[in-house]
Amino acid sequence: MSRQPSLATMDAETLAPLCKLDKHNELSLQDQIRRAVIGAINSGILPAGTRLPSSRKLADTLGVSRNTTLIAYQKLIADGHLESRERSGLFVAQAGHPVGDLGMQVIAPRRSKTAASAIQRIDPAAQRGRSFSFPPDWQSFRYPFLEGCYDRSLFPVVEWREASRLALAAQEVATWSIGSGEADDPYLVDEIRSKLLPRRGIAARPDEILITAGEQQALHLAMAVLASSGTVVGMEEPGLPEMRTLIDQRGSQRVSLPVDDEGLIVDENLSGCDVVHVSPSRQRPTAVTLSRARREDLLARAERDDFVIIEDDFECELNYLVDPLPALKGMDETDRVVYVASLSKVLEPGVGLGFMVAPPEFIAAARQLRSIASGRPSPNNQRAAAFFLSLGHYDAMLRRLSTVFEERLIALRDALNHYRPLSIAVAPVRGGTTLWIRADSDLSTRQLLRQAQSRGVLIEPVEDYYTSGTAPTNVFRLGVTSLPAKRIRDGIAALSDAMLATTGAEAEQEQRLQILSEAEVQDRIGGLTLYYRTVYGEPCTIQLNADGTMHGRAGSAGEDVDQGHWWTEDGKWFRHWERWAFGETLSFHVAIQDHQIFWLDDDHIIRDTAVIIEPSDEKTDSQPDAS
Amino acid sequence: MSRQPSLATMDAETLAPLCKLDKHNELSLQDQIRRAVIGAINSGILPAGTRLPSSRKLADTLGVSRNTTLIAYQKLIADGHLESRERSGLFVAQAGHPVGDLGMQVIAPRRSKTAASAIQRIDPAAQRGRSFSFPPDWQSFRYPFLEGCYDRSLFPVVEWREASRLALAAQEVATWSIGSGEADDPYLVDEIRSKLLPRRGIAARPDEILITAGEQQALHLAMAVLASSGTVVGMEEPGLPEMRTLIDQRGSQRVSLPVDDEGLIVDENLSGCDVVHVSPSRQRPTAVTLSRARREDLLARAERDDFVIIEDDFECELNYLVDPLPALKGMDETDRVVYVASLSKVLEPGVGLGFMVAPPEFIAAARQLRSIASGRPSPNNQRAAAFFLSLGHYDAMLRRLSTVFEERLIALRDALNHYRPLSIAVAPVRGGTTLWIRADSDLSTRQLLRQAQSRGVLIEPVEDYYTSGTAPTNVFRLGVTSLPAKRIRDGIAALSDAMLATTGAEAEQEQRLQILSEAEVQDRIGGLTLYYRTVYGEPCTIQLNADGTMHGRAGSAGEDVDQGHWWTEDGKWFRHWERWAFGETLSFHVAIQDHQIFWLDDDHIIRDTAVIIEPSDEKTDSQPDAS
Repeated sequence: MSRQPSLATMDAETLAPLCKLDKHNELSLQDQIRRAVIGAINSGILPAGTRLPSSRKLADTLGVSRNTTLIAYQKLIADGHLESRERSGLFVAQAGHPVGDLGMQVIAPRRSKTAASAIQRIDPAAQRGRSFSFPPDWQSFRYPFLEGCYDRSLFPVVEWREASRLALAAQEVATWSIGSGEADDPYLVDEIRSKLLPRRGIAARPDEILITAGEQQALHLAMAVLASSGTVVGMEEPGLPEMRTLIDQRGSQRVSLPVDDEGLIVDENLSGCDVVHVSPSRQRPTAVTLSRARREDLLARAERDDFVIIEDDFECELNYLVDPLPALKGMDETDRVVYVASLSKVLEPGVGLGFMVAPPEFIAAARQLRSIASGRPSPNNQRAAAFFLSLGHYDAMLRRLSTVFEERLIALRDALNHYRPLSIAVAPVRGGTTLWIRADSDLSTRQLLRQAQSRGVLIEPVEDYYTSGTAPTNVFRLGVTSLPAKRIRDGIAALSDAMLATTGAEAEQEQRLQILSEAEVQDRIGGLTLYYRTVYGEPCTIQLNADGTMHGRAGSAGEDVDQGHWWTEDGKWFRHWERWAFGETLSFHVAIQDHQIFWLDDDHIIRDTAVIIEPSDEKTDSQPDAS
Repeated sequence: MSRQPSLATMDAETLAPLCKLDKHNELSLQDQIRRAVIGAINSGILPAGTRLPSSRKLADTLGVSRNTTLIAYQKLIADGHLESRERSGLFVAQAGHPVGDLGMQVIAPRRSKTAASAIQRIDPAAQRGRSFSFPPDWQSFRYPFLEGCYDRSLFPVVEWREASRLALAAQEVATWSIGSGEADDPYLVDEIRSKLLPRRGIAARPDEILITAGEQQALHLAMAVLASSGTVVGMEEPGLPEMRTLIDQRGSQRVSLPVDDEGLIVDENLSGCDVVHVSPSRQRPTAVTLSRARREDLLARAERDDFVIIEDDFECELNYLVDPLPALKGMDETDRVVYVASLSKVLEPGVGLGFMVAPPEFIAAARQLRSIASGRPSPNNQRAAAFFLSLGHYDAMLRRLSTVFEERLIALRDALNHYRPLSIAVAPVRGGTTLWIRADSDLSTRQLLRQAQSRGVLIEPVEDYYTSGTAPTNVFRLGVTSLPAKRIRDGIAALSDAMLATTGAEAEQEQRLQILSEAEVQDRIGGLTLYYRTVYGEPCTIQLNADGTMHGRAGSAGEDVDQGHWWTEDGKWFRHWERWAFGETLSFHVAIQDHQIFWLDDDHIIRDTAVIIEPSDEKTDSQPDAS
């Protein structure tokens, strides 16, 4: 926003009420004026360079004699608060108090208080929140692997502008600006039900849809409708910390439901629940997808044990382009599922719209609660969003985001696979924008956070996603919504350095390894078949032939193959894949111990390891397509 | 919003997920497709005239044989759901199901359910709300005297559009669209603290301000920070029903604090309170203003009895132009006041922004709660509002609204004074947009509502503003935000008719009155001095001279004078004021009983009455300036 010139003028009408003149006050009127002006300077309301009203004007407005304002001004000048410039007037002085570029950055000294009653009465429950929050200056870090922040390239500026401008036409303003109680924009509701929901397998009537100020409000309202003290609410573990807070705010009983690689584990833990919060399409925060079998189990169990499901369709927008499993709500035949979603994760930070799908009576109750909590989400944005959808911009945005995020996620996986300084495991994902990383158990994420940050890398710790005190210390999360694909590799290289700096375990282990000489390498390596798992858990076999060629096959169906060369030189082993490892040449020292091969860098730090498969125990089942 | 032509096309990718084909289902695949298409037609997802994908395309997308889709389509055509048009394709048929102009208006038949679990679990507390709500079609009524609805002329279309467009510049979008946690727009915060708050006598730092989605969210968050079970919360009676709901939602104890013509009565009732909600500048709903003496008492008592005040600065925007009393927050020296306001009542229905001013610790807690409840209010609107303020549009809008609302309020008072069919009393107001009307005790507002509505008049009943069961039955509220000044007179004339139709008391009373003949009028009326109070409680004296002239003096300082003529003609008494009573000639029948004069219409219904002041008991104290 272009700021007005700092040489603003404070008019007498604005200044006068601040003076709060009181003839019965023990201070003289001129001192009351002085106190008010100094207070306004200190609190930044009068930034340096602001021109003040003339003493005559102020006197007239305040209804005091001109002498009173004149004396007040003279004292303020003498004390250095104001300065008089010939022929141009009276201004707030530059020196004597810290003024930033923006007046708003000035912090006034705290007023002295006899009691701070409003503070004393703050409900302690109101202060609980996430322990980790994104640094407000995350954009100044080169590698912000933070899900939920968005780099500038993602927002559909031109398309949103077009939709907004259409919504600003006079006849449009006339419909959204007049106040219609709590009704949502019928056009937005219609676009959602006719374009967005069918692709998630959901058929809904208009009175089954409520627009919300983002997905979080939808969760909040759903919980307000469903949960009170005595209600038992199940939530995923790890799970959304805001859901934990919501359950506690409602005074409900919280049950933690474990998650594995197929998502929420559907078992007896759910039986005592009245309400279960689940994020099937992309588990929050691990990003795994609830399998179809689990979905059917969950719905059957909800029916049998009579509980309600809050389905949190996180990244709904990304779920509906590529091979999605239908939403639970689409499989729901007994109105047990309350569906909540963001209209768009990418639009949300700037525009903030989400929605809820539930039976009409439920929507009516949620609408009533919404009227007390905040009123309907900005009608001007609802209309702009309706245009955004009806013009096809939404679909176009999703196609673009789908491509961008896929490219970034692949870049992240490739880089992790390449640089992993330690063995790490990544929870399996079907797309999305995050990876859930489990490192060696001796890694301390807290220490890694500091090491990474000093290298310009931001990663997300995961304590907040677990019940207090139960979080693993060696897990963290990486997201790709806030940096471009081309920067990801360097970011993971820096993260890899940070990981090495965090744990010294390898340095010790390396002491016991015997580095092979160049001749020993030539002798022992030719003809070996190596087996390892990629960081994202897929098997990979590498065949090192005696003629210096090598072949690799990766993926659970062995679908990703590559070939390359290896050789020795200057006492080290060199390798070069055609595509893998970014098609670059890398060199290592090599050590072999029992059935394991180790690659070490010049500092003799282990950079990678694999299992040697002797021809006799080669496992064909890990290479289903190799025959 | 201009709708797309109804001849839309449903593509195969959108239709396919709705089919939810399941090979293990007892229905054949073609019947599953048929069921899905019929369901989509019934629920309005496939409006009449929608073109369907070709059977080949659908077969490819579903991964079934073309025969399957072909047979499904043929049956759908045979059953009349679809129709084939030569050389153009297959369309949803027009007949057989009710389709409105918009597909969204179609209501699908309710699904049969074994259980409606989500509905059964709705917390009954979630369903409580106002018993009265504005008819959604209020615009189709000619005289909507409803506060909170806004006629189209009020929204600053051109100025808001300019501000919005500036906020849509690429470099602006880049700052508000990327996600910055829960921070509000620093520019909007700065505009509010440097331009708006000083005029209300409030000096605040940026960390003492929270932007909210309208004033209601500010109230909601303030209560969430302050109140829990065990908290005693005082609120005005009559008072805001949403505040009553908030107190009950928090499980707090509610204390009703009576209001009189000076606003909240400050007495021992407040002593037991932990928190007191008060609307000093314009009491919600009576619109009276808390006197300065009461303000000082209230703050002193808050200090002495240690409670926190939530100051609801309703119509903050209208309060700060004309002779405002400073906000309580501006007089607060011990941080006992939490200030909440709407950025603008006129912008609010379309844009929805408000704010809260409180100590930094309080704001931090409220911000944390906001993150759970809804997240920060739309950043794009925050930036647009910042531009709206910085460009001076806000000030210009306030000046315009102040003029418009003053004109309308005067029109309303004049019309009430002119047409009052019964004695009514209006609570005193210092501007604003509403009047709180108390009619004769035998008037039933409920009956009046129906009578008024049938004449195109909407008025607001007041039950919702009182604790259940305690509301007076003869009180209602009139607002001027939703109809222009020139329509107000006719609206009140219609309301007057409705009031006459509602109560038959006059008709009976008139039986006992002796209508004077023309000669008797001439004889008895010349030289009388009449006294009455206007509907808004101000005294008025009228002197009827024997020469046919008349003089009037009204207002508490006798500041409003007028003169006119009276005469008799055709058995009736005629009068004509130069300005009063719209400067029109009116005629009545006249009756005199004891010290009271009555004016009656042709149906002998009493239209007005006054007290006859004999020269001996003329009260000079009611005419302070008459000497």
